[in-house]
Amino acid sequence: MRIKVLKNVLEKNDNQAQINRDLFKKNRVLAVNIMGSPGCGKTTLIEALINVLIPSYRIGVIEGDYAGTVDAERLSRYHIPVVQLDTSSCHLNAHFVGSALDHLPLRDLDFVFIENVGNLICPAEFDIGDLLKLVLYSIPEGDDKPLKYPLMFSQADAVVLTKSDLKPHFDFDVKKVRESIARLNREFEIFEFSKKSHSSIKPIANFLESRFRATVLKSYGDL
Amino acid sequence: MRIKVLKNVLEKNDNQAQINRDLFKKNRVLAVNIMGSPGCGKTTLIEALINVLIPSYRIGVIEGDYAGTVDAERLSRYHIPVVQLDTSSCHLNAHFVGSALDHLPLRDLDFVFIENVGNLICPAEFDIGDLLKLVLYSIPEGDDKPLKYPLMFSQADAVVLTKSDLKPHFDFDVKKVRESIARLNREFEIFEFSKKSHSSIKPIANFLESRFRATVLKSYGDL
Repeated sequence: MRIKVLKNVLEKNDNQAQINRDLFKKNRVLAVNIMGSPGCGKTTLIEALINVLIPSYRIGVIEGDYAGTVDAERLSRYHIPVVQLDTSSCHLNAHFVGSALDHLPLRDLDFVFIENVGNLICPAEFDIGDLLKLVLYSIPEGDDKPLKYPLMFSQADAVVLTKSDLKPHFDFDVKKVRESIARLNREFEIFEFSKKSHSSIKPIANFLESRFRATVLKSYGDL
Repeated sequence: MRIKVLKNVLEKNDNQAQINRDLFKKNRVLAVNIMGSPGCGKTTLIEALINVLIPSYRIGVIEGDYAGTVDAERLSRYHIPVVQLDTSSCHLNAHFVGSALDHLPLRDLDFVFIENVGNLICPAEFDIGDLLKLVLYSIPEGDDKPLKYPLMFSQADAVVLTKSDLKPHFDFDVKKVRESIARLNREFEIFEFSKKSHSSIKPIANFLESRFRATVLKSYGDL
């Protein structure tokens, strides 16, 4: 009998996630994990949040993509620190996010937005050490998605229904979505967002600001 | 503007897959990637294949699991070389399989069975350098699976319908499955297997033997 056991070259994901989380807390940074399918509007939401929050807050971004740097290039005009992770995988893991943190000036930031790889399954299975999870999901994807991807929706601190200007063109029942998520998740917020409605980003930005004050400033005030 | 781009710490998957494939060819080993959902019977099929093939062939196994060594322990009674990969991920990648090859006596093997992580999505997206793909899928999973996981079924050299003794208890249409796969895949074999029917492993073993002779012995005879 010859059995050789090899551990993954990466340290166990959960240990590294805790290291990342402690680093965010120590630096009083609200790290927001932004998840959703390809094309659901993750980068567009990040752009809208930067526009609203940048006058009052210091923001950094970690862009995770299966390949390429298109999303990071879109963000370059904001003159904020951006790290692009070229994952070659279906999800971000804690180790790879940890390596991005070496390249961000955490002490000088309030928010770090982490755009995960476009995928409703695997990112939910790998803790990256975030302090808040936003799950995005666009009206054209259909109102049955929470039933099909329960793990993702059960973890969301907030769900953002994107491309909400398209509602008149789809048979999409927001109440049904809210009820489906409520069966999975005891406490979550739900927002509707369209890049064509400048006011629609405000409630989401307010939510993040209140979480920043409650989570980062209060809870870790005595670190 | 500050954009830092980090590549995955692993070498690009496809490059490493080609390195693995060349190594299998050079050593005249038929590397078989065995994929399917959790609990579909991947380890059971490997055990049955070992029993049939071991009198004539030299076999090694790479066991990929999200966690634990249960499957490798099941195989220990065959006294063959087994490497357990503890992946902490939803799929095997080429780099991790490559690290297992350092621990297998490839020159002294004919077959390497690589049991992928239980999952019908991600393993299909990551080439590991195999020379043959078996996709397993059990009768209780239902006959609609090829429609739901087209990438996986489009890549299969052979599909094995496992737990076939349960057919009388399910409304499972094998003809429909065969037609669904045929729409995705120009050339594939389909087998039915039950561990309760000793004869059901024979056609699968014959298929692997003929592929071993055709692919490994003939094509690479002049390497």
